[in-house]
Amino acid sequence: MRYPSGINKTYKNNIHYDNRGMNLESDLNATNEYYRIHDIAVIYKKPTSITIVKVDYPSRYEAVIKEAYFRTPSTTDYNGIYKKKYIDFEAKETKLNSFPLNNIHNHQIEHLKKIIFHGGIGFIIVKFTKVNKIFLLTADKFINYIENNSKKSIPITFFEQHGYLIKLNYNPRIDYLKVIDEIYFKGD
Amino acid sequence: MRYPSGINKTYKNNIHYDNRGMNLESDLNATNEYYRIHDIAVIYKKPTSITIVKVDYPSRYEAVIKEAYFRTPSTTDYNGIYKKKYIDFEAKETKLNSFPLNNIHNHQIEHLKKIIFHGGIGFIIVKFTKVNKIFLLTADKFINYIENNSKKSIPITFFEQHGYLIKLNYNPRIDYLKVIDEIYFKGD
Repeated sequence: MRYPSGINKTYKNNIHYDNRGMNLESDLNATNEYYRIHDIAVIYKKPTSITIVKVDYPSRYEAVIKEAYFRTPSTTDYNGIYKKKYIDFEAKETKLNSFPLNNIHNHQIEHLKKIIFHGGIGFIIVKFTKVNKIFLLTADKFINYIENNSKKSIPITFFEQHGYLIKLNYNPRIDYLKVIDEIYFKGD
Repeated sequence: MRYPSGINKTYKNNIHYDNRGMNLESDLNATNEYYRIHDIAVIYKKPTSITIVKVDYPSRYEAVIKEAYFRTPSTTDYNGIYKKKYIDFEAKETKLNSFPLNNIHNHQIEHLKKIIFHGGIGFIIVKFTKVNKIFLLTADKFINYIENNSKKSIPITFFEQHGYLIKLNYNPRIDYLKVIDEIYFKGD
């Protein structure tokens, strides 16, 4: 998604300015909406972090942002509450057979560590688009891999062995809380 | 903060495009940073909700948002985790002697109801700038007032009677978790 210098791209699909995560993101948004409507959980994707530099007021009640920049996020993209527990995760897609670690910023990893420290449930969801498989990997296993490997990516085999495959449904599309139930609420 | 038609305002202080909440917001951000640094809690203000329409790429690695619009937020501004509990709140300043309810959107109230339903801790923080007093009001009392009153604002006396005064410190500036301890963790 890199454009040559000077090219000006207008977005038809307003929110998604990066196609890489589009399908997974929209499926997760639909899933979270399902969870909210059915009073299962309240989990949202955070808005994109931006720095606003210039705002125009073409009319009395209208504000148009005319200059703003994307910022590196300090946290993961998704958080909320499920069964009284704080939920926090990052979601990414990859076309490769391994998950490149440069997809996750260092402070996002530090953030997930803090979430575990405070008693929250943290994880990552990774979609391998080539095989159309979505895995949930708990933050502790994810961090453990990073801290004990010099590799720059996590192979899909690690997800198969240490993660949980999320089955795709019609509604909710990506029922990741079913996996969370299995890991954290088995006795309930 | 309304500008006559056609006026173009450039912001020196990048993030704050609305002065009304500026002091409270920056004090809360500093407080949350203190909580994070001292491993007390992980609570963030969410980025501003915007809809991006146009992005320019003046160089290969730089993206500049050239057209975007503010969106009505679906949730409250702040959330995170404290002592294993999910925390969720909205913060507002007012120059009046009562808190105007049009400061909080209906879906933010619905959101706070859902947070209580799922076992989270929800509240609002309101700063009355004229008397320089900051109150924390739990979501249940806030919602109860709204549902049993036809008034369009909540008088400061209601906050004095049913809310909690947050003392201002040097660091952390607005120690609202002290109040949360008093209400929810008294036995700890």
